[in-house]
Amino acid sequence: MAFTFWRKLRTSTMKFKIAILGAGNVAWNLAPALEDAGHVITEVYARDIASAEQITDRVYAGEPKDDLDFSASEAEIFIMAVKDSAILEIADEIILPEESILVHTSGSVGLDMLNYSSATYTGIFYPLQSFTKGRKIEFDEVPFLLESDDEETLQKLKKLAKSLSPMTYAVRSKDRKAMHIAAVFASNFSNHMIRIAEEVMARQGLDFEMLKPLIIETISKSLQLGAKAAQTGPAIREDYETMEDHYRFLSYNEGFAEIYRLISQDIVDS
Amino acid sequence: MAFTFWRKLRTSTMKFKIAILGAGNVAWNLAPALEDAGHVITEVYARDIASAEQITDRVYAGEPKDDLDFSASEAEIFIMAVKDSAILEIADEIILPEESILVHTSGSVGLDMLNYSSATYTGIFYPLQSFTKGRKIEFDEVPFLLESDDEETLQKLKKLAKSLSPMTYAVRSKDRKAMHIAAVFASNFSNHMIRIAEEVMARQGLDFEMLKPLIIETISKSLQLGAKAAQTGPAIREDYETMEDHYRFLSYNEGFAEIYRLISQDIVDS
Repeated sequence: MAFTFWRKLRTSTMKFKIAILGAGNVAWNLAPALEDAGHVITEVYARDIASAEQITDRVYAGEPKDDLDFSASEAEIFIMAVKDSAILEIADEIILPEESILVHTSGSVGLDMLNYSSATYTGIFYPLQSFTKGRKIEFDEVPFLLESDDEETLQKLKKLAKSLSPMTYAVRSKDRKAMHIAAVFASNFSNHMIRIAEEVMARQGLDFEMLKPLIIETISKSLQLGAKAAQTGPAIREDYETMEDHYRFLSYNEGFAEIYRLISQDIVDS
Repeated sequence: MAFTFWRKLRTSTMKFKIAILGAGNVAWNLAPALEDAGHVITEVYARDIASAEQITDRVYAGEPKDDLDFSASEAEIFIMAVKDSAILEIADEIILPEESILVHTSGSVGLDMLNYSSATYTGIFYPLQSFTKGRKIEFDEVPFLLESDDEETLQKLKKLAKSLSPMTYAVRSKDRKAMHIAAVFASNFSNHMIRIAEEVMARQGLDFEMLKPLIIETISKSLQLGAKAAQTGPAIREDYETMEDHYRFLSYNEGFAEIYRLISQDIVDS
Protein backbone atom coordinates (compact mmCIF):
# COMPACT_ATOMS: atom_id res chain seq x y z
CA MET A 1 0.00 0.00 0.00
CA ALA A 2 2.83 2.36 0.85
CA PHE A 3 4.36 1.71 -2.53
CA THR A 4 1.10 2.41 -4.33
CA PHE A 5 0.77 5.72 -2.52
CA TRP A 6 4.31 6.69 -3.40
CA ARG A 7 3.69 5.77 -7.02
CA LYS A 8 0.62 7.99 -7.11
CA LEU A 9 2.59 10.88 -5.70
CA ARG A 10 5.39 10.31 -8.16
CA THR A 11 3.11 10.31 -11.18
CA SER A 12 0.95 13.16 -9.97
CA THR A 13 3.07 15.94 -11.41
CA MET A 14 0.78 16.59 -14.38
CA LYS A 15 -2.94 15.99 -14.39
CA PHE A 16 -5.11 16.34 -17.47
CA LYS A 17 -8.76 16.89 -18.13
CA ILE A 18 -9.71 14.29 -20.70
CA ALA A 19 -12.74 13.54 -22.85
CA ILE A 20 -13.20 10.01 -24.19
CA LEU A 21 -14.82 9.45 -27.58
CA GLY A 22 -16.06 5.90 -27.93
CA ALA A 23 -17.51 3.26 -25.63
CA GLY A 24 -15.86 0.05 -26.78
CA ASN A 25 -13.24 -2.27 -25.29
CA VAL A 26 -10.48 0.35 -25.14
CA ALA A 27 -12.69 3.04 -23.57
CA TRP A 28 -14.06 0.54 -21.04
CA ASN A 29 -10.53 -0.17 -19.81
CA LEU A 30 -8.91 3.23 -20.37
CA ALA A 31 -11.40 5.58 -18.69
CA PRO A 32 -11.16 4.18 -15.13
CA ALA A 33 -7.39 3.68 -15.50
CA LEU A 34 -6.95 7.36 -16.38
CA GLU A 35 -9.02 8.34 -13.37
CA ASP A 36 -7.04 6.01 -11.11
CA ALA A 37 -3.90 7.77 -12.32
CA GLY A 38 -5.32 11.09 -11.12
CA HIS A 39 -6.71 12.57 -14.34
CA VAL A 40 -10.26 13.86 -14.71
CA ILE A 41 -12.68 12.40 -17.24
CA THR A 42 -14.90 15.29 -18.30
CA GLU A 43 -17.14 13.63 -20.90
CA VAL A 44 -17.66 10.31 -22.67
CA TYR A 45 -19.17 10.41 -26.15
CA ALA A 46 -20.93 7.55 -27.92
CA ARG A 47 -23.42 7.58 -30.79
CA ASP A 48 -26.09 6.33 -28.38
CA ILE A 49 -26.21 7.71 -24.87
CA ALA A 50 -26.73 4.31 -23.19
CA SER A 51 -23.33 3.15 -24.43
CA ALA A 52 -21.70 6.34 -23.17
CA GLU A 53 -23.32 5.74 -19.78
CA GLN A 54 -21.76 2.27 -19.63
CA ILE A 55 -18.41 4.05 -19.48
CA THR A 56 -19.37 7.05 -17.30
CA ASP A 57 -20.78 4.54 -14.79
CA ARG A 58 -17.22 3.31 -14.35
CA VAL A 59 -15.77 6.72 -13.47
CA TYR A 60 -16.40 9.36 -10.85
CA ALA A 61 -17.36 12.44 -12.81
CA GLY A 62 -17.61 11.96 -16.59
CA GLU A 63 -20.73 13.19 -18.35
CA PRO A 64 -22.29 11.01 -21.08
CA LYS A 65 -22.85 12.70 -24.45
CA ASP A 66 -24.29 11.66 -27.81
CA ASP A 67 -23.37 14.79 -29.77
CA LEU A 68 -19.98 15.97 -30.99
CA ASP A 69 -20.16 19.61 -29.92
CA PHE A 70 -17.38 19.92 -27.36
CA SER A 71 -16.98 23.69 -27.71
CA ALA A 72 -17.88 24.15 -24.02
CA SER A 73 -15.78 21.22 -22.78
CA GLU A 74 -13.11 21.76 -20.13
CA ALA A 75 -11.03 18.90 -21.51
CA GLU A 76 -7.61 19.52 -22.97
CA ILE A 77 -7.04 16.06 -24.43
CA PHE A 78 -9.67 14.26 -26.54
CA ILE A 79 -9.04 10.54 -26.92
CA MET A 80 -10.81 8.78 -29.78
CA ALA A 81 -11.11 5.14 -28.79
CA VAL A 82 -13.27 4.07 -31.72
CA LYS A 83 -12.91 1.56 -34.53
CA ASP A 84 -10.59 2.57 -37.38
CA SER A 85 -13.41 3.22 -39.85
CA ALA A 86 -15.05 5.79 -37.52
CA ILE A 87 -11.94 7.90 -36.91
CA LEU A 88 -12.17 10.08 -40.02
CA GLU A 89 -15.87 10.85 -39.57
CA ILE A 90 -15.57 11.81 -35.91
CA ALA A 91 -12.42 13.84 -36.54
CA ASP A 92 -14.26 15.78 -39.24
CA GLU A 93 -17.45 16.36 -37.26
CA ILE A 94 -16.18 17.08 -33.77
CA ILE A 95 -16.24 20.70 -32.57
CA LEU A 96 -13.36 21.30 -30.20
CA PRO A 97 -12.37 24.14 -27.89
CA GLU A 98 -9.24 26.23 -28.54
CA GLU A 99 -5.80 24.68 -27.88
CA SER A 100 -7.14 21.17 -27.65
CA ILE A 101 -5.29 17.96 -28.48
CA LEU A 102 -7.12 15.28 -30.47
CA VAL A 103 -5.61 11.78 -30.49
CA HIS A 104 -6.70 8.37 -31.70
CA THR A 105 -5.79 4.99 -30.17
CA SER A 106 -5.39 2.97 -33.36
CA GLY A 107 -2.37 0.92 -34.36
CA SER A 108 -3.07 1.06 -38.06
CA VAL A 109 -4.43 4.55 -38.82
CA GLY A 110 -1.98 7.33 -39.72
CA LEU A 111 -1.73 10.71 -38.06
CA ASP A 112 -2.84 12.38 -41.31
CA MET A 113 -6.40 11.11 -40.73
CA LEU A 114 -6.76 13.91 -38.18
CA ASN A 115 -5.52 16.65 -40.55
CA TYR A 116 -8.91 18.23 -41.20
CA SER A 117 -10.23 18.19 -37.65
CA SER A 118 -10.83 21.37 -35.65
CA ALA A 119 -8.11 20.33 -33.17
CA THR A 120 -5.17 22.68 -32.66
CA TYR A 121 -2.87 19.70 -32.06
CA THR A 122 -3.18 16.07 -33.04
CA GLY A 123 -1.47 12.87 -32.05
CA ILE A 124 -1.64 9.13 -31.59
CA PHE A 125 -1.99 7.45 -28.23
CA TYR A 126 -1.91 3.73 -29.02
CA PRO A 127 -1.99 1.20 -26.18
CA LEU A 128 -0.52 -1.99 -27.70
CA GLN A 129 -2.74 -4.54 -26.05
CA SER A 130 -5.83 -6.60 -26.77
CA PHE A 131 -8.75 -5.17 -24.82
CA THR A 132 -12.05 -6.80 -23.92
CA LYS A 133 -14.94 -5.33 -21.99
CA GLY A 134 -15.28 -7.04 -18.62
CA ARG A 135 -11.65 -8.18 -18.60
CA LYS A 136 -9.51 -5.74 -16.63
CA ILE A 137 -6.08 -5.00 -18.05
CA GLU A 138 -3.19 -3.90 -15.82
CA PHE A 139 -2.03 -0.79 -17.64
CA ASP A 140 1.42 -0.80 -16.05
CA GLU A 141 2.23 -3.69 -18.41
CA VAL A 142 0.84 -2.01 -21.53
CA PRO A 143 3.29 -0.37 -23.96
CA PHE A 144 2.07 3.01 -25.24
CA LEU A 145 3.09 4.07 -28.75
CA LEU A 146 2.95 7.80 -29.16
CA GLU A 147 3.20 10.17 -32.11
CA SER A 148 2.70 13.84 -32.80
CA ASP A 149 4.05 16.43 -35.22
CA ASP A 150 4.14 18.92 -32.36
CA GLU A 151 6.94 18.42 -29.84
CA GLU A 152 5.04 19.91 -26.88
CA THR A 153 2.03 17.70 -27.63
CA LEU A 154 4.29 14.64 -27.81
CA GLN A 155 5.70 15.53 -24.38
CA LYS A 156 2.18 15.85 -22.94
CA LEU A 157 1.15 12.51 -24.43
CA LYS A 158 4.31 11.00 -22.98
CA LYS A 159 3.44 12.35 -19.53
CA LEU A 160 -0.09 11.05 -19.88
CA ALA A 161 1.14 7.59 -20.95
CA LYS A 162 3.81 7.53 -18.22
CA SER A 163 1.09 8.08 -15.64
CA LEU A 164 -0.34 4.71 -16.74
CA SER A 165 2.70 2.64 -17.72
CA PRO A 166 6.49 2.69 -17.61
CA MET A 167 6.60 1.54 -21.25
CA THR A 168 6.17 4.48 -23.59
CA TYR A 169 7.66 4.76 -27.05
CA ALA A 170 7.66 7.53 -29.64
CA VAL A 171 6.96 5.63 -32.86
CA ARG A 172 6.53 7.08 -36.34
CA SER A 173 3.50 6.04 -38.41
CA LYS A 174 5.59 3.86 -40.73
CA ASP A 175 7.11 1.94 -37.81
CA ARG A 176 3.73 1.70 -36.14
CA LYS A 177 2.43 -0.02 -39.26
CA ALA A 178 5.28 -2.57 -39.18
CA MET A 179 4.51 -3.12 -35.55
CA HIS A 180 0.85 -3.61 -36.23
CA ILE A 181 1.71 -6.23 -38.85
CA ALA A 182 4.04 -7.95 -36.38
CA ALA A 183 1.20 -7.89 -33.85
CA VAL A 184 -1.16 -9.50 -36.37
CA PHE A 185 1.28 -12.41 -36.75
CA ALA A 186 2.19 -12.71 -33.07
CA SER A 187 -1.34 -12.28 -31.76
CA ASN A 188 -4.16 -12.83 -34.29
CA PHE A 189 -2.36 -15.52 -36.30
CA SER A 190 -0.96 -17.45 -33.33
CA ASN A 191 -4.50 -17.36 -31.94
CA HIS A 192 -5.78 -18.77 -35.24
CA MET A 193 -3.23 -21.60 -35.00
CA ILE A 194 -4.80 -22.46 -31.63
CA ARG A 195 -8.22 -22.23 -33.28
CA ILE A 196 -7.21 -24.79 -35.93
CA ALA A 197 -5.78 -27.03 -33.21
CA GLU A 198 -9.12 -26.82 -31.36
CA GLU A 199 -10.93 -27.93 -34.51
CA VAL A 200 -8.56 -30.82 -35.27
CA MET A 201 -9.01 -32.05 -31.69
CA ALA A 202 -12.80 -31.59 -31.66
CA ARG A 203 -13.23 -33.48 -34.94
CA GLN A 204 -11.50 -36.47 -33.33
CA GLY A 205 -13.48 -36.10 -30.08
CA LEU A 206 -10.32 -35.26 -28.15
CA ASP A 207 -10.15 -33.05 -25.07
CA PHE A 208 -8.41 -29.75 -25.91
CA GLU A 209 -7.31 -29.44 -22.26
CA MET A 210 -4.53 -31.91 -23.09
CA LEU A 211 -2.81 -29.32 -25.28
CA LYS A 212 -2.91 -26.36 -22.90
CA PRO A 213 0.27 -27.13 -20.88
CA LEU A 214 2.20 -27.51 -24.15
CA ILE A 215 0.93 -24.18 -25.48
CA ILE A 216 1.83 -22.35 -22.27
CA GLU A 217 5.33 -23.89 -22.20
CA THR A 218 5.91 -23.17 -25.90
CA ILE A 219 4.97 -19.49 -25.65
CA SER A 220 6.94 -19.04 -22.40
CA LYS A 221 10.00 -20.61 -24.02
CA SER A 222 9.53 -18.55 -27.17
CA LEU A 223 9.40 -15.25 -25.27
CA GLN A 224 12.32 -16.26 -23.07
CA LEU A 225 14.74 -17.78 -25.61
CA GLY A 226 13.44 -16.19 -28.82
CA ALA A 227 11.22 -18.04 -31.28
CA LYS A 228 14.07 -19.32 -33.45
CA ALA A 229 15.86 -21.07 -30.59
CA ALA A 230 12.57 -22.33 -29.16
CA GLN A 231 11.32 -24.02 -32.34
CA THR A 232 10.69 -27.80 -32.33
CA GLY A 233 8.60 -30.18 -34.41
CA PRO A 234 8.71 -31.97 -37.76
CA ALA A 235 9.44 -28.91 -39.94
CA ILE A 236 12.56 -27.72 -38.10
CA ARG A 237 13.80 -31.35 -38.04
CA GLU A 238 13.08 -31.52 -41.79
CA ASP A 239 11.10 -34.68 -41.11
CA TYR A 240 9.37 -34.82 -44.51
CA GLU A 241 7.76 -38.19 -43.88
CA THR A 242 5.82 -36.87 -40.88
CA MET A 243 4.95 -33.63 -42.69
CA GLU A 244 3.56 -35.52 -45.70
CA ASP A 245 1.60 -37.78 -43.39
CA HIS A 246 0.12 -34.76 -41.58
CA TYR A 247 -0.67 -33.04 -44.91
CA ARG A 248 -2.57 -36.12 -46.09
CA PHE A 249 -4.45 -36.33 -42.78
CA LEU A 250 -5.57 -32.71 -43.22
CA SER A 251 -6.92 -33.26 -46.75
CA TYR A 252 -10.50 -33.02 -45.37
CA ASN A 253 -9.92 -29.27 -44.99
CA GLU A 254 -8.09 -27.62 -47.89
CA GLY A 255 -7.40 -24.43 -45.94
CA PHE A 256 -5.78 -26.28 -43.03
CA ALA A 257 -3.71 -28.47 -45.36
CA GLU A 258 -2.45 -25.47 -47.32
CA ILE A 259 -1.59 -23.54 -44.13
CA TYR A 260 0.25 -26.63 -42.86
CA ARG A 261 2.27 -26.88 -46.09
CA LEU A 262 3.11 -23.19 -46.34
CA ILE A 263 4.18 -22.62 -42.72
CA SER A 264 6.16 -25.87 -42.64
CA GLN A 265 7.95 -24.74 -45.81
CA ASP A 266 8.73 -21.37 -44.24
CA ILE A 267 10.13 -23.07 -41.12
CA VAL A 268 12.30 -25.35 -43.27
CA ASP A 269 13.53 -22.36 -45.32
CA SER A 270 14.26 -20.13 -42.33
CA MET B 1 6.10 -30.13 3.05
CA ALA B 2 3.39 -32.14 4.75
CA PHE B 3 1.41 -32.18 1.56
CA THR B 4 4.40 -33.34 -0.47
CA PHE B 5 4.95 -36.20 1.94
CA TRP B 6 1.31 -37.22 1.76
CA ARG B 7 1.47 -37.12 -2.04
CA LYS B 8 4.51 -39.37 -2.06
CA LEU B 9 2.75 -41.84 0.21
CA ARG B 10 -0.36 -41.78 -1.93
CA THR B 11 1.52 -42.49 -5.12
CA SER B 12 3.85 -45.04 -3.61
CA THR B 13 1.58 -48.03 -4.13
CA MET B 14 3.43 -49.33 -7.20
CA LYS B 15 7.12 -48.84 -7.84
CA PHE B 16 8.85 -49.87 -11.03
CA LYS B 17 12.40 -50.61 -12.02
CA ILE B 18 12.95 -48.66 -15.19
CA ALA B 19 15.68 -48.44 -17.84
CA ILE B 20 15.90 -45.29 -19.95
CA LEU B 21 17.07 -45.53 -23.56
CA GLY B 22 18.21 -42.16 -24.84
CA ALA B 23 19.90 -39.11 -23.38
CA GLY B 24 18.06 -36.20 -24.99
CA ASN B 25 15.64 -33.57 -23.73
CA VAL B 26 12.95 -36.05 -22.64
CA ALA B 27 15.39 -38.36 -20.83
CA TRP B 28 17.05 -35.40 -19.09
CA ASN B 29 13.70 -34.38 -17.60
CA LEU B 30 12.06 -37.78 -17.19
CA ALA B 31 14.78 -39.75 -15.37
CA PRO B 32 14.97 -37.59 -12.20
CA ALA B 33 11.19 -37.13 -12.18
CA LEU B 34 10.69 -40.90 -12.17
CA GLU B 35 13.15 -41.24 -9.32
CA ASP B 36 11.45 -38.44 -7.38
CA ALA B 37 8.20 -40.39 -7.75
CA GLY B 38 9.82 -43.38 -6.05
CA HIS B 39 10.79 -45.54 -9.03
CA VAL B 40 14.29 -46.94 -9.57
CA ILE B 41 16.34 -46.10 -12.65
CA THR B 42 18.44 -49.20 -13.32
CA GLU B 43 20.30 -48.16 -16.50
CA VAL B 44 20.53 -45.33 -18.99
CA TYR B 45 21.57 -46.22 -22.52
CA ALA B 46 23.05 -43.85 -25.09
CA ARG B 47 25.15 -44.54 -28.18
CA ASP B 48 28.08 -42.85 -26.47
CA ILE B 49 28.69 -43.41 -22.80
CA ALA B 50 29.37 -39.74 -21.99
CA SER B 51 25.81 -38.83 -23.00
CA ALA B 52 24.41 -41.64 -20.87
CA GLU B 53 26.45 -40.34 -17.93
CA GLN B 54 24.87 -36.89 -18.34
CA ILE B 55 21.59 -38.53 -17.37
CA THR B 56 22.85 -40.99 -14.74
CA ASP B 57 24.56 -38.03 -13.04
CA ARG B 58 21.06 -36.68 -12.42
CA VAL B 59 19.80 -39.80 -10.63
CA TYR B 60 20.82 -41.82 -7.58
CA ALA B 61 21.55 -45.25 -8.93
CA GLY B 62 21.30 -45.62 -12.71
CA GLU B 63 24.18 -47.24 -14.58
CA PRO B 64 25.33 -45.75 -17.89
CA LYS B 65 25.46 -48.14 -20.88
CA ASP B 66 26.44 -47.89 -24.53
CA ASP B 67 25.33 -51.35 -25.63
CA LEU B 68 21.82 -52.71 -26.10
CA ASP B 69 22.19 -56.03 -24.30
CA PHE B 70 19.78 -55.72 -21.39
CA SER B 71 19.37 -59.49 -20.84
CA ALA B 72 20.76 -59.14 -17.29
CA SER B 73 18.78 -55.97 -16.46
CA GLU B 74 16.49 -55.87 -13.44
CA ALA B 75 14.22 -53.36 -15.12
CA GLU B 76 10.65 -54.22 -15.98
CA ILE B 77 9.85 -51.15 -18.08
CA PHE B 78 12.16 -49.91 -20.84
CA ILE B 79 11.43 -46.35 -21.93
CA MET B 80 12.80 -45.29 -25.32
CA ALA B 81 13.17 -41.52 -25.19
CA VAL B 82 14.90 -41.15 -28.55
CA LYS B 83 14.15 -39.31 -31.76
CA ASP B 84 11.51 -40.89 -34.00
CA SER B 85 13.98 -42.10 -36.59
CA ALA B 86 15.94 -44.13 -34.01
CA ILE B 87 12.96 -46.01 -32.55
CA LEU B 88 12.82 -48.83 -35.10
CA GLU B 89 16.55 -49.53 -34.97
CA ILE B 90 16.75 -49.65 -31.18
CA ALA B 91 13.57 -51.73 -30.93
CA ASP B 92 15.07 -54.25 -33.36
CA GLU B 93 18.50 -54.43 -31.73
CA ILE B 94 17.70 -54.33 -28.03
CA ILE B 95 17.98 -57.59 -26.09
CA LEU B 96 15.44 -57.61 -23.29
CA PRO B 97 14.79 -59.89 -20.32
CA GLU B 98 11.63 -62.01 -20.09
CA GLU B 99 8.29 -60.32 -19.34
CA SER B 100 9.61 -56.86 -20.08
CA ILE B 101 7.63 -53.88 -21.33
CA LEU B 102 9.14 -51.73 -24.09
CA VAL B 103 7.58 -48.30 -24.68
CA HIS B 104 8.46 -45.25 -26.72
CA THR B 105 7.71 -41.61 -25.88
CA SER B 106 6.85 -40.32 -29.35
CA GLY B 107 3.70 -38.48 -30.37
CA SER B 108 3.94 -39.47 -34.00
CA VAL B 109 5.22 -43.06 -34.16
CA GLY B 110 2.73 -45.94 -34.11
CA LEU B 111 2.73 -48.86 -31.72
CA ASP B 112 3.45 -51.22 -34.64
CA MET B 113 7.02 -49.90 -34.82
CA LEU B 114 7.75 -52.06 -31.78
CA ASN B 115 6.27 -55.26 -33.30
CA TYR B 116 9.56 -56.97 -34.02
CA SER B 117 11.33 -56.17 -30.77
CA SER B 118 12.22 -58.85 -28.22
CA ALA B 119 9.83 -57.26 -25.69
CA THR B 120 7.03 -59.40 -24.32
CA TYR B 121 4.79 -56.33 -24.09
CA THR B 122 4.91 -53.00 -25.88
CA GLY B 123 3.30 -49.64 -25.40
CA ILE B 124 3.46 -45.89 -25.82
CA PHE B 125 4.23 -43.51 -22.97
CA TYR B 126 3.99 -40.07 -24.55
CA PRO B 127 4.40 -36.97 -22.37
CA LEU B 128 2.70 -34.18 -24.33
CA GLN B 129 5.08 -31.36 -23.59
CA SER B 130 8.04 -29.55 -25.14
CA PHE B 131 11.20 -30.56 -23.30
CA THR B 132 14.57 -28.82 -23.24
CA LYS B 133 17.71 -29.89 -21.42
CA GLY B 134 18.46 -27.50 -18.58
CA ARG B 135 14.86 -26.31 -18.34
CA LYS B 136 13.01 -28.24 -15.62
CA ILE B 137 9.44 -29.22 -16.39
CA GLU B 138 6.88 -29.75 -13.61
CA PHE B 139 5.53 -33.17 -14.54
CA ASP B 140 2.32 -32.76 -12.55
CA GLU B 141 1.18 -30.44 -15.36
CA VAL B 142 2.16 -32.78 -18.19
CA PRO B 143 -0.56 -34.87 -19.86
CA PHE B 144 0.52 -38.47 -20.53
CA LEU B 145 -0.93 -40.26 -23.55
CA LEU B 146 -0.78 -44.00 -23.17
CA GLU B 147 -1.37 -46.93 -25.45
CA SER B 148 -0.91 -50.70 -25.38
CA ASP B 149 -2.56 -53.73 -26.95
CA ASP B 150 -2.21 -55.52 -23.63
CA GLU B 151 -4.66 -54.45 -20.95
CA GLU B 152 -2.38 -55.27 -18.01
CA THR B 153 0.48 -53.33 -19.61
CA LEU B 154 -1.83 -50.36 -20.17
CA GLN B 155 -2.77 -50.44 -16.47
CA LYS B 156 0.91 -50.49 -15.47
CA LEU B 157 1.68 -47.57 -17.78
CA LYS B 158 -1.27 -45.73 -16.30
CA LYS B 159 0.05 -46.31 -12.78
CA LEU B 160 3.49 -45.16 -13.84
CA ALA B 161 2.09 -42.02 -15.48
CA LYS B 162 -0.21 -41.32 -12.50
CA SER B 163 2.83 -41.32 -10.25
CA LEU B 164 4.06 -38.29 -12.24
CA SER B 165 0.89 -36.45 -13.25
CA PRO B 166 -2.85 -36.42 -12.62
CA MET B 167 -3.45 -36.10 -16.39
CA THR B 168 -3.31 -39.48 -18.06
CA TYR B 169 -5.22 -40.49 -21.15
CA ALA B 170 -5.51 -43.75 -23.06
CA VAL B 171 -5.28 -42.62 -26.67
CA ARG B 172 -5.29 -44.80 -29.79
CA SER B 173 -2.58 -44.26 -32.42
CA LYS B 174 -4.99 -42.62 -34.86
CA ASP B 175 -6.14 -40.10 -32.26
CA ARG B 176 -2.56 -39.55 -31.14
CA LYS B 177 -1.73 -38.56 -34.71
CA ALA B 178 -4.57 -36.02 -34.81
CA MET B 179 -3.34 -34.69 -31.53
CA HIS B 180 0.19 -34.42 -32.76
CA ILE B 181 -1.05 -32.43 -35.77
CA ALA B 182 -3.06 -30.18 -33.45
CA ALA B 183 0.10 -29.71 -31.36
CA VAL B 184 2.09 -28.73 -34.46
CA PHE B 185 -0.43 -25.94 -35.14
CA ALA B 186 -0.85 -24.83 -31.52
CA SER B 187 2.82 -25.02 -30.62
CA ASN B 188 5.28 -25.08 -33.56
CA PHE B 189 3.19 -22.87 -35.85
CA SER B 190 2.17 -20.32 -33.23
CA ASN B 191 5.87 -20.14 -32.32
CA HIS B 192 6.67 -19.50 -35.99
CA MET B 193 4.14 -16.65 -36.04
CA ILE B 194 6.11 -15.11 -33.17
CA ARG B 195 9.29 -15.73 -35.18
CA ILE B 196 7.91 -13.81 -38.16
CA ALA B 197 6.81 -11.00 -35.82
CA GLU B 198 10.37 -10.86 -34.43
CA GLU B 199 11.73 -10.50 -37.96
CA VAL B 200 9.24 -7.81 -39.01
CA MET B 201 10.15 -5.82 -35.88
CA ALA B 202 13.91 -6.33 -36.25
CA ARG B 203 13.88 -5.20 -39.89
CA GLN B 204 12.33 -1.91 -38.75
CA GLY B 205 14.72 -1.59 -35.80
CA LEU B 206 11.85 -1.94 -33.32
CA ASP B 207 12.13 -3.43 -29.84
CA PHE B 208 10.35 -6.80 -29.70
CA GLU B 209 9.75 -6.30 -25.97
CA MET B 210 6.84 -4.02 -26.94
CA LEU B 211 4.90 -7.01 -28.27
CA LYS B 212 5.33 -9.38 -25.33
CA PRO B 213 2.46 -8.15 -23.13
CA LEU B 214 0.11 -8.45 -26.13
CA ILE B 215 1.24 -12.01 -26.85
CA ILE B 216 0.80 -13.08 -23.22
CA GLU B 217 -2.69 -11.50 -23.04
CA THR B 218 -3.75 -13.02 -26.38
CA ILE B 219 -2.73 -16.55 -25.46
CA SER B 220 -4.25 -16.27 -21.96
CA LYS B 221 -7.51 -15.04 -23.46
CA SER B 222 -7.43 -17.74 -26.12
CA LEU B 223 -7.00 -20.55 -23.58
CA GLN B 224 -9.62 -19.04 -21.30
CA LEU B 225 -12.38 -18.08 -23.76
CA GLY B 226 -11.50 -20.35 -26.68
CA ALA B 227 -9.65 -19.10 -29.75
CA LYS B 228 -12.78 -18.31 -31.76
CA ALA B 229 -14.21 -15.93 -29.16
CA ALA B 230 -10.77 -14.43 -28.49
CA GLN B 231 -9.98 -13.50 -32.09
CA THR B 232 -9.42 -9.83 -32.98
CA GLY B 233 -7.64 -7.99 -35.79
CA PRO B 234 -8.22 -6.97 -39.41
CA ALA B 235 -9.19 -10.42 -40.76
CA ILE B 236 -12.02 -11.14 -38.31
CA ARG B 237 -13.28 -7.56 -38.88
CA GLU B 238 -13.06 -8.23 -42.65
CA ASP B 239 -11.06 -5.02 -42.93
CA TYR B 240 -9.81 -5.66 -46.48
CA GLU B 241 -8.17 -2.25 -46.81
CA THR B 242 -5.83 -2.91 -43.88
CA MET B 243 -5.17 -6.48 -45.04
CA GLU B 244 -4.21 -5.31 -48.55
CA ASP B 245 -2.00 -2.63 -47.04
CA HIS B 246 -0.25 -5.21 -44.83
CA TYR B 247 0.12 -7.61 -47.77
CA ARG B 248 1.82 -4.91 -49.84
CA PHE B 249 4.10 -4.00 -46.93
CA LEU B 250 5.20 -7.65 -46.72
CA SER B 251 6.07 -7.91 -50.43
CA TYR B 252 9.81 -7.88 -49.51
CA ASN B 253 9.35 -11.47 -48.26
CA GLU B 254 7.16 -13.66 -50.45
CA GLY B 255 6.79 -16.35 -47.78
CA PHE B 256 5.54 -13.90 -45.15
CA ALA B 257 3.15 -12.23 -47.62
CA GLU B 258 1.68 -15.57 -48.69
CA ILE B 259 1.28 -16.74 -45.09
CA TYR B 260 -0.42 -13.43 -44.29
CA ARG B 261 -2.85 -13.86 -47.19
CA LEU B 262 -3.67 -17.50 -46.52
CA ILE B 263 -4.24 -17.25 -42.76
CA SER B 264 -6.23 -14.03 -43.13
CA GLN B 265 -8.43 -15.79 -45.71
CA ASP B 266 -8.93 -18.73 -43.36
CA ILE B 267 -9.92 -16.37 -40.52
CA VAL B 268 -12.40 -14.58 -42.82
CA ASP B 269 -13.85 -17.94 -43.98
CA SER B 270 -14.14 -19.46 -40.51
